[in-house]
Amino acid sequence: MHILIINGPNLNLTGKRQPDVYGSASFEEILVELRALHPEVTIDYLQSNLEGEIIGGIQDADGKYAGIILNAGGYTHTSVAIGDAVAAVDVPVIEVHMSNVDRREPFRKISHIAAQSAGSIAGFGAGSYFLAVEALKRRSEKYFLRNT
Amino acid sequence: MHILIINGPNLNLTGKRQPDVYGSASFEEILVELRALHPEVTIDYLQSNLEGEIIGGIQDADGKYAGIILNAGGYTHTSVAIGDAVAAVDVPVIEVHMSNVDRREPFRKISHIAAQSAGSIAGFGAGSYFLAVEALKRRSEKYFLRNT
Amino acid sequence: MHILIINGPNLNLTGKRQPDVYGSASFEEILVELRALHPEVTIDYLQSNLEGEIIGGIQDADGKYAGIILNAGGYTHTSVAIGDAVAAVDVPVIEVHMSNVDRREPFRKISHIAAQSAGSIAGFGAGSYFLAVEALKRRSEKYFLRNT
Amino acid sequence: MHILIINGPNLNLTGKRQPDVYGSASFEEILVELRALHPEVTIDYLQSNLEGEIIGGIQDADGKYAGIILNAGGYTHTSVAIGDAVAAVDVPVIEVHMSNVDRREPFRKISHIAAQSAGSIAGFGAGSYFLAVEALKRRSEKYFLRNT
Amino acid sequence: MHILIINGPNLNLTGKRQPDVYGSASFEEILVELRALHPEVTIDYLQSNLEGEIIGGIQDADGKYAGIILNAGGYTHTSVAIGDAVAAVDVPVIEVHMSNVDRREPFRKISHIAAQSAGSIAGFGAGSYFLAVEALKRRSEKYFLRNT
Amino acid sequence: MHILIINGPNLNLTGKRQPDVYGSASFEEILVELRALHPEVTIDYLQSNLEGEIIGGIQDADGKYAGIILNAGGYTHTSVAIGDAVAAVDVPVIEVHMSNVDRREPFRKISHIAAQSAGSIAGFGAGSYFLAVEALKRRSEKYFLRNT
Amino acid sequence: MHILIINGPNLNLTGKRQPDVYGSASFEEILVELRALHPEVTIDYLQSNLEGEIIGGIQDADGKYAGIILNAGGYTHTSVAIGDAVAAVDVPVIEVHMSNVDRREPFRKISHIAAQSAGSIAGFGAGSYFLAVEALKRRSEKYFLRNT
Amino acid sequence: MHILIINGPNLNLTGKRQPDVYGSASFEEILVELRALHPEVTIDYLQSNLEGEIIGGIQDADGKYAGIILNAGGYTHTSVAIGDAVAAVDVPVIEVHMSNVDRREPFRKISHIAAQSAGSIAGFGAGSYFLAVEALKRRSEKYFLRNT
Amino acid sequence: MHILIINGPNLNLTGKRQPDVYGSASFEEILVELRALHPEVTIDYLQSNLEGEIIGGIQDADGKYAGIILNAGGYTHTSVAIGDAVAAVDVPVIEVHMSNVDRREPFRKISHIAAQSAGSIAGFGAGSYFLAVEALKRRSEKYFLRNT
Amino acid sequence: MHILIINGPNLNLTGKRQPDVYGSASFEEILVELRALHPEVTIDYLQSNLEGEIIGGIQDADGKYAGIILNAGGYTHTSVAIGDAVAAVDVPVIEVHMSNVDRREPFRKISHIAAQSAGSIAGFGAGSYFLAVEALKRRSEKYFLRNT
Amino acid sequence: MHILIINGPNLNLTGKRQPDVYGSASFEEILVELRALHPEVTIDYLQSNLEGEIIGGIQDADGKYAGIILNAGGYTHTSVAIGDAVAAVDVPVIEVHMSNVDRREPFRKISHIAAQSAGSIAGFGAGSYFLAVEALKRRSEKYFLRNT
Amino acid sequence: MHILIINGPNLNLTGKRQPDVYGSASFEEILVELRALHPEVTIDYLQSNLEGEIIGGIQDADGKYAGIILNAGGYTHTSVAIGDAVAAVDVPVIEVHMSNVDRREPFRKISHIAAQSAGSIAGFGAGSYFLAVEALKRRSEKYFLRNT
Repeated sequence: MHILIINGPNLNLTGKRQPDVYGSASFEEILVELRALHPEVTIDYLQSNLEGEIIGGIQDADGKYAGIILNAGGYTHTSVAIGDAVAAVDVPVIEVHMSNVDRREPFRKISHIAAQSAGSIAGFGAGSYFLAVEALKRRSEKYFLRNT
Repeated sequence: MHILIINGPNLNLTGKRQPDVYGSASFEEILVELRALHPEVTIDYLQSNLEGEIIGGIQDADGKYAGIILNAGGYTHTSVAIGDAVAAVDVPVIEVHMSNVDRREPFRKISHIAAQSAGSIAGFGAGSYFLAVEALKRRSEKYFLRNT
Repeated sequence: MHILIINGPNLNLTGKRQPDVYGSASFEEILVELRALHPEVTIDYLQSNLEGEIIGGIQDADGKYAGIILNAGGYTHTSVAIGDAVAAVDVPVIEVHMSNVDRREPFRKISHIAAQSAGSIAGFGAGSYFLAVEALKRRSEKYFLRNT
Repeated sequence: MHILIINGPNLNLTGKRQPDVYGSASFEEILVELRALHPEVTIDYLQSNLEGEIIGGIQDADGKYAGIILNAGGYTHTSVAIGDAVAAVDVPVIEVHMSNVDRREPFRKISHIAAQSAGSIAGFGAGSYFLAVEALKRRSEKYFLRNT
Repeated sequence: MHILIINGPNLNLTGKRQPDVYGSASFEEILVELRALHPEVTIDYLQSNLEGEIIGGIQDADGKYAGIILNAGGYTHTSVAIGDAVAAVDVPVIEVHMSNVDRREPFRKISHIAAQSAGSIAGFGAGSYFLAVEALKRRSEKYFLRNT
Repeated sequence: MHILIINGPNLNLTGKRQPDVYGSASFEEILVELRALHPEVTIDYLQSNLEGEIIGGIQDADGKYAGIILNAGGYTHTSVAIGDAVAAVDVPVIEVHMSNVDRREPFRKISHIAAQSAGSIAGFGAGSYFLAVEALKRRSEKYFLRNT
Repeated sequence: MHILIINGPNLNLTGKRQPDVYGSASFEEILVELRALHPEVTIDYLQSNLEGEIIGGIQDADGKYAGIILNAGGYTHTSVAIGDAVAAVDVPVIEVHMSNVDRREPFRKISHIAAQSAGSIAGFGAGSYFLAVEALKRRSEKYFLRNT
Repeated sequence: MHILIINGPNLNLTGKRQPDVYGSASFEEILVELRALHPEVTIDYLQSNLEGEIIGGIQDADGKYAGIILNAGGYTHTSVAIGDAVAAVDVPVIEVHMSNVDRREPFRKISHIAAQSAGSIAGFGAGSYFLAVEALKRRSEKYFLRNT
Repeated sequence: MHILIINGPNLNLTGKRQPDVYGSASFEEILVELRALHPEVTIDYLQSNLEGEIIGGIQDADGKYAGIILNAGGYTHTSVAIGDAVAAVDVPVIEVHMSNVDRREPFRKISHIAAQSAGSIAGFGAGSYFLAVEALKRRSEKYFLRNT
Repeated sequence: MHILIINGPNLNLTGKRQPDVYGSASFEEILVELRALHPEVTIDYLQSNLEGEIIGGIQDADGKYAGIILNAGGYTHTSVAIGDAVAAVDVPVIEVHMSNVDRREPFRKISHIAAQSAGSIAGFGAGSYFLAVEALKRRSEKYFLRNT
Repeated sequence: MHILIINGPNLNLTGKRQPDVYGSASFEEILVELRALHPEVTIDYLQSNLEGEIIGGIQDADGKYAGIILNAGGYTHTSVAIGDAVAAVDVPVIEVHMSNVDRREPFRKISHIAAQSAGSIAGFGAGSYFLAVEALKRRSEKYFLRNT
Repeated sequence: MHILIINGPNLNLTGKRQPDVYGSASFEEILVELRALHPEVTIDYLQSNLEGEIIGGIQDADGKYAGIILNAGGYTHTSVAIGDAVAAVDVPVIEVHMSNVDRREPFRKISHIAAQSAGSIAGFGAGSYFLAVEALKRRSEKYFLRNT
């Protein structure tokens, strides 16, 4: 099973930004652990600060991946165009956030991606990615998506 | 490990309401499968249509459970008091929804529970509960909650 | 024909509250007259100040009654969960109000029940219940619901 | 007993517009049935696409009719002037709608007529008119308008 | 000097509507007195409940009158098209209201005519018209419109 | 091919209003040129300041014309009823504006007609009508409406 | 007859500020002309940039003047306290503005004084004061305030 | 005559996305037909998912093209910076949309480009581009832009 | 003198919730002290997490108590029905809050109870209850309620 | 114990304004009684209609008084600067209102002072001041401010 | 070169209010340093808690000073009248704030002064004044105000 | 001392866009003068129309520069992601604008950068950059940032 993680703007700073608060693991280190926890899944990774590259990444994933895990960072709240890309492809896209976005500024309560995505997971730190992979793996099981 | 699932109003109708759309599994059947998928976890269950009973359920869980999985149904969008109860107890509370609430009416975009909860999972049907149990089980692992 | 009237919070005070303005008939007296005016209809009655009991009443009516007449009182304007219950059952639910709610405070202009109900009747005092029974009785006639 | 039905813009198309959805009865046919159902009531009828003619119709009815049944169509949501006319005359005016207006666009939730009218009935198709006539007939009975 | 008074919807009811509150003088009687108070001015009068006739009346006045006194009634708050007509002609248009519109419903605080008019007078009953005629008569005097 | 142009309030003033800014051609002169540019199309013309007449004009066109070109002027922003008429007929209706309405007052950004129309053209002066005729002529060509 | 004119902040600059646009007459010169035009009225004058002095001026006028003409300048849109003062005294207060405030910034559309005043006059330059004096003089005449 | 078409994010998917609804023509195929329909016009084409490249494309067109046809896709509703670029260049820019954007989500009613553009065309599918080329070709004719 | 204190949801946690911030006294301990401070007053106590029980408690107090002290907790901001109950009974109801609700989330600034209550006291911790009892005791003294 | 009462604009009219409704006691008379009821407290008094003098009064009280009782009148709802002054001093400030401000105009629901004050008391007439003195006296007692 | 610094309400407390956070320098000490840093500039100083005195200070500066540096404190967000005064004089007025107002309450994001001022500087503590003097000194240099 | 100036979209057009209004100096020429005015400061320059490149530029500056001067152009009002980048780095970032943004469209009043920046300067043309360099140079002086 092949999946793609797409991280948006400033997520390349993970581990450097306020390490006393958020811990000091970089996303590359998180990725190593994530792959170790899900050895049967091949995980590709794309990070970009460019809105259009994220759109391109979502488009290119069509037909190649079993799912996308998307943390669009600050673009979550402003990008109609990324939401359109998610709606345009057939790959299931799971929206993730490491932090609890509802605890932050009011403008972060609005997501242009949530309504188009196959599901949303927020607030579990690196664990949000773990749960999203788990969700993609189990989509074919009878239990999952039951009573959606 | 003991956890408590609290389901709010109308979730007792799961499986009866629009079965062609949402499937015909009742929540009791879902619960059987959920327990089978997580045999090492003891899962208690509380459903109530009464806002105050949900508040009481959250309060009583304090000191007894390792976590609460809370689907407050329609109260999610209107109950300041349930949000206050979540904030008042020490048990981690995970907010779940079976459907993708962002695709429905605008007033469902507001959650009084999200900001107080330990994390949110929405849109995976019965799988939302599975992922929430997974999240509670792994909270003590180093990977989880890293970079929250 | 069996129907159920559900009255929400404070409607048990009907006839005691501002009798010089609203008249001094209690809802029990109104019920006696209503049954006399529609002798061929069996009318059950449920009043509760508890939001969850109203939800339960609506759920339990499924399959037992030909219709529900619902005056949710103050919950009309705040309860997403009662609106969800109305949407979840197959029984037609008619929303009634004794007063002209549009003449009162602005927050009373919003109804979470109207969009889910089979019809709305407001402003005719006790007559609103009479008309609602009439509407339920005639639903099977060719004229009714024509050009809905 | 003489009453007047006033229908606003586009209601002359009743029966032609989406007949598979709304049925194919014209308002004239509905009127025939309505008169048959209430043989003791003389029902006059006025339809106009002109806001000012509806205002004129309401004004002219003063002193001539026992009541007006008003479906102002699209003007319901925009006409302060029709609302003023309803407030200015002594004839009781009942607001009716065939469809459940709360299920449609958000701007249809606002009515400039409701607060001025003697009561509102919506969502029963042609039956909304039937119930409105019933309401006007029974206004003199002790039961009606009790506890308004 | 020739001027035109245009009264909008329901102002033909002046004197009949709530006479104990507003007095019982019809607008025709008011007009007699107004002409007596300003004998040197020829005052034409147009009343219409039709938005489009008011627009037509404003357009036709162009080049024929020294000024228009416009009380658009309920259209004041909803008619972009009357505001456009006022802006399109060269005749000065004075907006008048008999009542203090700011004391009434919130939607009456918005005027689509005020910004296009040569001035506004409100709250002096029939006197609002008297003052408006005075204002038109004195427009050519040095004192008037000074420091506008 | 027969088409109908409907112009709303104040468009009869075209060419008289601010001629230094908007040019001095009346709509009648524009119509002569428009017919000359599209000689194979029969163009009927209706102008009215009355909202209800515009509604009537749209209704009457059903079955008689291949298309309507509608410039509702100030009613564009306030008339739910004209929007309803456009939705009710089978004739394709194209919304046009001569000016760039987005550069004017904020309340002109809202159109009750756009969502119901077959397309919108704004900002090309008299050219907006030319393009609208072109659009109606080519609707049957394979290229047009492709990928709508 | 004794009346008091109260001018608020920046109105002491009248005649100095943008004289090419607003003319170069100071308010003192305007006052001379106003007194000449109404020789039978004794007009006192108070100008202050201090909100509290304007409140004091209104309070002190109680029982001493037949009326107040109040141009509160920028305080019109922000001062609940001046509005309270106008409501607290028995003297009739007429709100005046020299400019057409509806043509300026949106925050100038709100007046905390209008709803409490005996009437409003705006847009006639110095003439607004003339008309306000006229209104106070004629209050005792039968015609005035008729049909308010 | 040289013109430039700029398509924004996700428009490279034209023809692949929901082909049963929108048709299966790619934009490249549409371009072939467009060039065939307007053989005397040289049409350059730029598509980008990157907001900044669209800005660059607009800037670079200055002095090189007779006009730009711009479909900014999802950026239409969020990009102040593209609107600034349109305002900054001398080339006329025509805003086009294939779909009727007013029928979609409410946030699509806002365009940051419309107010800066030379005109807007929406809802004619591929025909929107055809009409935009037509508009650019005829800009020099006397008829066009008359009474803008 | 008999009075009733009603505490709403989560107030049963008083003293357990954030004791370092709010102190560790339970409401039962507070009640002991309150009774000691007002020995001549008989104080009954009702706490409920159920909105409907609070409504019932208010209704049942009618005719039995000289006053109610109501801290509705989270229901303060959402319950139209509790506000209706307060308005329906003749007992004076004093709204109290221990914390300064204006310092918390914006949705806590709205109270559905304040407008119906006999007075409001907030921000004095347990002292808010003390002051409310004092207020009820002194209602019959001449000084109190003077100049309300 | 020394405390300071500060009354804002128009409170010097207490007792004169609508005496049939509010009673005819002036604030000076109220002060006499208040001092008699709390003989062990020295109460200074400051009334001003000037926003800046109230700010000065608050600043000057720092270090001199054990507490301030502040009724800012109409400035309550508009003065950011008085709220800043309350926040800047170390003296506890208690906000009082004689009337139930929540029953009046909507703009009176907003207080710029509440969030900065040590507590709020409203609706008890002159009694609001009595309770505020009581609150200041008891601040040092263990019971008070417990569980704030 | 003569300039005037005007400080609004509560700025006389600078250095006393939260000295651990904001430092303990009074504005007088800041002024000494500011004069030392700009020895060639004569700096006058006015502080007032009174809105009207600030207006007066701005008016009186006309013709006497080369520029005003205005920190209107809490009035920044509420005073239309100070904004009017800034607009009325010819002296360039620079708006300064010591703190970063965008980090504080939402109502502080609105400035009635910014749009009327010659420039704004915020967030540099005492340095905001230094930079404002620098800006006034260099206004005559070619570089400054280039490309404004 | 090394600093970095980052200019956002369309600022590469400085000097070409409306030269009669804004002057004809390009930003490169402005940069030459700026370096001449601050010879002891090494100023690097980055301009990009790409939101993501600006984010990258801010991230890369961490640890390399003593400060960033950021004019994000149109992205100021829409980019949550640039605001996040400013918050994520340790370099002080000063927000500058050449024009007075408060005088332009209402959506330009919102800045996603201001709250995260070390200070803001707007309205001085090229001088805004000069003042920002001055501010960075003096940050280490005792006077600066005093009483921030």
